[in-house]
Amino acid sequence: MTVAVGIGAWSRRHMLDVEGLSRDEIGRILDMAVEMRIARAERRHRSLLEDEVVGLAFYEVSTRTRVSFELAAKALGATTVDLSVAGSSVAKGESLVDTLRTLERTGVTTLVLRHGSSGAAHLAVRTTGLRVVNAGDGIHAHPSQALLDALTLREAFGTLEGIRLVIVGDVVHSRVARSNIHCLLTMGALVRVAGPPAWVAGFEEWPGIDVATTLPEALDGADAVMALRAQTERGAILPPELAEWRLDTERMRHADPGAVVLHPGPTNEGVELTAELANGPRSLIGRQVENGVPVRMAVLALVAGAA
Amino acid sequence: MTVAVGIGAWSRRHMLDVEGLSRDEIGRILDMAVEMRIARAERRHRSLLEDEVVGLAFYEVSTRTRVSFELAAKALGATTVDLSVAGSSVAKGESLVDTLRTLERTGVTTLVLRHGSSGAAHLAVRTTGLRVVNAGDGIHAHPSQALLDALTLREAFGTLEGIRLVIVGDVVHSRVARSNIHCLLTMGALVRVAGPPAWVAGFEEWPGIDVATTLPEALDGADAVMALRAQTERGAILPPELAEWRLDTERMRHADPGAVVLHPGPTNEGVELTAELANGPRSLIGRQVENGVPVRMAVLALVAGAA
Amino acid sequence: MTVAVGIGAWSRRHMLDVEGLSRDEIGRILDMAVEMRIARAERRHRSLLEDEVVGLAFYEVSTRTRVSFELAAKALGATTVDLSVAGSSVAKGESLVDTLRTLERTGVTTLVLRHGSSGAAHLAVRTTGLRVVNAGDGIHAHPSQALLDALTLREAFGTLEGIRLVIVGDVVHSRVARSNIHCLLTMGALVRVAGPPAWVAGFEEWPGIDVATTLPEALDGADAVMALRAQTERGAILPPELAEWRLDTERMRHADPGAVVLHPGPTNEGVELTAELANGPRSLIGRQVENGVPVRMAVLALVAGAA
Repeated sequence: MTVAVGIGAWSRRHMLDVEGLSRDEIGRILDMAVEMRIARAERRHRSLLEDEVVGLAFYEVSTRTRVSFELAAKALGATTVDLSVAGSSVAKGESLVDTLRTLERTGVTTLVLRHGSSGAAHLAVRTTGLRVVNAGDGIHAHPSQALLDALTLREAFGTLEGIRLVIVGDVVHSRVARSNIHCLLTMGALVRVAGPPAWVAGFEEWPGIDVATTLPEALDGADAVMALRAQTERGAILPPELAEWRLDTERMRHADPGAVVLHPGPTNEGVELTAELANGPRSLIGRQVENGVPVRMAVLALVAGAA
Repeated sequence: MTVAVGIGAWSRRHMLDVEGLSRDEIGRILDMAVEMRIARAERRHRSLLEDEVVGLAFYEVSTRTRVSFELAAKALGATTVDLSVAGSSVAKGESLVDTLRTLERTGVTTLVLRHGSSGAAHLAVRTTGLRVVNAGDGIHAHPSQALLDALTLREAFGTLEGIRLVIVGDVVHSRVARSNIHCLLTMGALVRVAGPPAWVAGFEEWPGIDVATTLPEALDGADAVMALRAQTERGAILPPELAEWRLDTERMRHADPGAVVLHPGPTNEGVELTAELANGPRSLIGRQVENGVPVRMAVLALVAGAA
Repeated sequence: MTVAVGIGAWSRRHMLDVEGLSRDEIGRILDMAVEMRIARAERRHRSLLEDEVVGLAFYEVSTRTRVSFELAAKALGATTVDLSVAGSSVAKGESLVDTLRTLERTGVTTLVLRHGSSGAAHLAVRTTGLRVVNAGDGIHAHPSQALLDALTLREAFGTLEGIRLVIVGDVVHSRVARSNIHCLLTMGALVRVAGPPAWVAGFEEWPGIDVATTLPEALDGADAVMALRAQTERGAILPPELAEWRLDTERMRHADPGAVVLHPGPTNEGVELTAELANGPRSLIGRQVENGVPVRMAVLALVAGAA
């Protein structure tokens, strides 16, 4: 069944990265997410994906991403199956490719894959006929996170055009940062990255990206600040000057008076930002999580050709 | 959708403890559970909670409680999501409160929470807008267990008024015991606790509770005996005289000739009671498990305002 | 609800083993699986098992078997509950029998059980009133695997009568081999086993089975070759001559020119067979997985009396 949900005829078979999406395409997905939020509240589209079988294959721990993809799929009537439930055949030495081909052959139509290896989702596309949604691959990409961040910022400012965002912290190990940079530059936002030198190394060569070397410089004129946690599971080493980069209410005075705070979660309050800031009136962290389900409803409908 | 299922207009937003429920309220829940058992058998109320999203967050292992809450939710048409499926963000250092707020923001409406910390369910109420059902918090409370025990006893004796129940074993570490005491005293039953001294310490000060120091004394005149396992995971130390407290057919002669045996499970046969007794004609242990799903259907409907 | 799905009135309460099924019964199940595959593609029978509650109790890791049983149950509208989701009460010392009785008392109607102990499924039948589907018990039996292998071979050759199959590898520790031998001998196929001596010990006494002691001898005249991995988790020791038994394209020249290759998966490519062979035109390994869901739909419908 294909039901137009308001954005006209356009679909993608996969959602691997934000890179390569046009400004128009990103705008359509955000519009579709808004429509999906309303549809969910009004109990519409509950059979939209009733012929889809969504396989959730999370090889790294997750709460918000896994739960929101699962609830997005169920809200649209898809059947879900969780690969992680009872352990996997990994213990018998099975490769990722073999496991994904098995899922395809059992009738799974859409794979939602999180994996520690950058490129895992592309591997799934090359080796199976599954529709693939990348739910985070190593340090490479996390497109649905970038899309929900973009929706959150668009709600706050009415547009993404000209918005000045600074990403602070362990940028180099962050797939969230990379996908956000692609998304926001495409949408016409201005993006700066900042953090201890080892955590922003190489970003000065990214066209259109500004690198700041102190927190006051980083925050200067910012409309929005996205804090990142240290990805110690990807080899990040906590630098001695880490405390100089902790965001708090006092330091936020360097930013625009109306500046907002984002974080992809989970936060380490007191490390990359204070609890006061994370839970204060400037924080959009809760709104980011709320936008996760409608954005993922839109993504699942899009790859299924049902949107 | 709100459908009256037979007990009239009354609901609670949370089910944290039996303490504070009136005799009338407990009676209504038990009546509703009886109605739910019939409804399930007759395939009625299958859409009663179709707009609810029940999040199952079990931070301690469980078979009977988790499975029966999950099947209760599904029998009423609710969407379920299991927090434990693929590991949680706990590994990234996320706090319980942050995890529960995340669940709320993904659209979970009712939280079923089991946690090792006494007060965890109350914390969830204070920090989120979720409807909260306590599925066991530390040594504090396990209200749905007490309600299903009360239903089991009411079925056996026709009433709870005047029934003489003795709880034998590791009472001090048992949330089941505490919730049963609140429930049964409210319903007019007579409650005695008994066990090695360290396992009943402090209960002599509980108004209305009788403490026995030998098994024959404990069983004297009892209509019902509830055996408890040692909660070694909460620090219980097995006392040298433990065997003196093991229930068996011979020792049950000290009780009323028609006395029944209960146990919240899982049992350690041969430790707190013999296999012969656990599986014999006096045992209501299987009936307790059977009453789990209808009682939890009633509880979920109640907190959703659908009952 | 009982709906005839095309094979007439016949059902079984359990599916514990292929042993004991007649040629006619096996043929009917394979016919029913073909019908189920069509029904799934045409979105029929989606409410066939809507009154069933299927409990998935996998005490050993599995991807393909667990996922295909879960999707088979969901495709027919059954409620599923996974015992493994949040850990089990095993950690509290509960026995298998107690756990299964608990499942039964919560309303589970059909148990799909995988367990490391041979006879576990029979134990479930003796101690509960559940319909029991054996999804693999120790080295004993794995009937749904044998049925899907039989369907795969019947599709390839049009019949099983007279087909010459050789099973190569760790036969002695393989429940798949035992169930395949029962199934294929009943269907009139010719079965040979082959492998290092310790891995085929005792099979020379199985009536109707031929044992080969070299790979060329094993493959001579074979229409189909089933490779097995070493079940090191059941005590298999890798023999020094293992490489002599690895199947590859060159060695397959000893078999019939049209011979096909099967493997119950997961494969250890380069150990029991080469990647070239596993992924080549003679391989039916992918088709085996594809046949898993329709065969298990047929099995679940059969035990529920709905077929």
